[in-house]
Amino acid sequence: MKGYAVESQWYAHNIRVRYQETDQMGVVYHTHYANWFEWGRAELIREAGMPYKEMEERGLMLPVTALDVAYQLPAYYDDELVIRTRLTAFSPIRLAFGYEIVRDGSLLASGSTEHIWLNEQWKPVRLDRAATDMYALLQRIALCEE
Amino acid sequence: MKGYAVESQWYAHNIRVRYQETDQMGVVYHTHYANWFEWGRAELIREAGMPYKEMEERGLMLPVTALDVAYQLPAYYDDELVIRTRLTAFSPIRLAFGYEIVRDGSLLASGSTEHIWLNEQWKPVRLDRAATDMYALLQRIALCEE
Amino acid sequence: MKGYAVESQWYAHNIRVRYQETDQMGVVYHTHYANWFEWGRAELIREAGMPYKEMEERGLMLPVTALDVAYQLPAYYDDELVIRTRLTAFSPIRLAFGYEIVRDGSLLASGSTEHIWLNEQWKPVRLDRAATDMYALLQRIALCEE
Amino acid sequence: MKGYAVESQWYAHNIRVRYQETDQMGVVYHTHYANWFEWGRAELIREAGMPYKEMEERGLMLPVTALDVAYQLPAYYDDELVIRTRLTAFSPIRLAFGYEIVRDGSLLASGSTEHIWLNEQWKPVRLDRAATDMYALLQRIALCEE
Repeated sequence: MKGYAVESQWYAHNIRVRYQETDQMGVVYHTHYANWFEWGRAELIREAGMPYKEMEERGLMLPVTALDVAYQLPAYYDDELVIRTRLTAFSPIRLAFGYEIVRDGSLLASGSTEHIWLNEQWKPVRLDRAATDMYALLQRIALCEE
Repeated sequence: MKGYAVESQWYAHNIRVRYQETDQMGVVYHTHYANWFEWGRAELIREAGMPYKEMEERGLMLPVTALDVAYQLPAYYDDELVIRTRLTAFSPIRLAFGYEIVRDGSLLASGSTEHIWLNEQWKPVRLDRAATDMYALLQRIALCEE
Repeated sequence: MKGYAVESQWYAHNIRVRYQETDQMGVVYHTHYANWFEWGRAELIREAGMPYKEMEERGLMLPVTALDVAYQLPAYYDDELVIRTRLTAFSPIRLAFGYEIVRDGSLLASGSTEHIWLNEQWKPVRLDRAATDMYALLQRIALCEE
Repeated sequence: MKGYAVESQWYAHNIRVRYQETDQMGVVYHTHYANWFEWGRAELIREAGMPYKEMEERGLMLPVTALDVAYQLPAYYDDELVIRTRLTAFSPIRLAFGYEIVRDGSLLASGSTEHIWLNEQWKPVRLDRAATDMYALLQRIALCEE
């Protein structure tokens, strides 16, 4: 992805696997991992000080433009998992995140997503102009500053 | 539900059970039946001549106010099912639908939903005033006219 | 439902609304409430001392035979909600639960589910014979004993 | 992926976007595309003569080991879409598929999945030994033979 490659700290968010996430193989159906990634980045940016809900209230959206997942080990019903999320690329118009799904220290899956900032008319926007405060917060995460 | 009790014809819509609808019991997870009901009523009103999409484009929404499902027999992956839907109550501000999920003539589940007409400000509206053409179409279904 | 009518204490479980639970009306799609009910009863029986996962490992399943939901107010993305769950009927072969979905003290929806104990061959079983310890735990919840 | 790179014919499967697939951005939530990919490959292998259901009945599973999706344009409620699927890599122990999601000739998204053959003990198996008939069918698809 275009933009600065960065490596923010990992942010951890704990979840428990729900019954409806399983399938008849007896494991979590593979697309739910991508849902978990969304939860991970929502919690990362909440911790950074700008809940995604507020972004949308200010007319900014951050849809996913690319997704990849590599599956190592299955997750099971009722597992307690950690979603680890970090910012991996950063520019005024784009973001990328990396993810790991971990159970008791074992990596179950890893992945990434790419995103673009859009306004309510679905036109690309530069975050550094549309919302300087948000841009500054992300920059701080990107640079691993406290 | 308030409103005329009616018994429209059954409208049939065919589906196939998808893998992500199964759970680790090896059957369809129970909440998916409620999704199927939504597909059934969407197809009923499409056949009646007013796709639900057009309703929303005209500023009318029909959220669910009540749902019930009675489960008789499990559905399995790859099953070919019929969603049977009919209008069961009808007034200028409310609708109710009845549903049956059928496989090879066997009833797997039945249920019902109730709905209210809302405008984009989430205020109740009388359909006979807000959209007389839609109201007439529904009335025709309710009265089982061709 | 057949079985003793009981009124256990309410067990509370906190959740946050996720983005994929919303729909284009800007609210939570109605079938997700039924998923939340499942989370609520899973946490109730976990607190009672027998995680549902262990039940299945012992060859016992508790599928849903009936579901109803009454919707009062919409839930929104990122809402912090409480799932309140209690046991409402109880016999050696059946269970029923009641639920409330609450945000800041306001009731968004309420509902109920009914269940039957099955073995791995999907035949009904009497829990008091198949798993006396589990039966005793449920009886304790049903009778609101500490 | 290891295995022969192949380029089978595209198999087309038509779907309609359902309400619960939308989110509050007013478009399809991004993880549903990965569900659609699963429907596409299920239909491809059904047309090839071996429904995935039968594979599992014979003790063979084909879990996803990698997934990627590139999103170009949003899909909307009630859209009629085509899921295009083809086999892109092939060996006795692995498969890969490519996908396109198309609306009225416009590409909305593309992607790929990788898979491994496992037995019921979740151990890798060679399909050419475990199910020579299935292997022959896949080989025929891979080679674009009629």
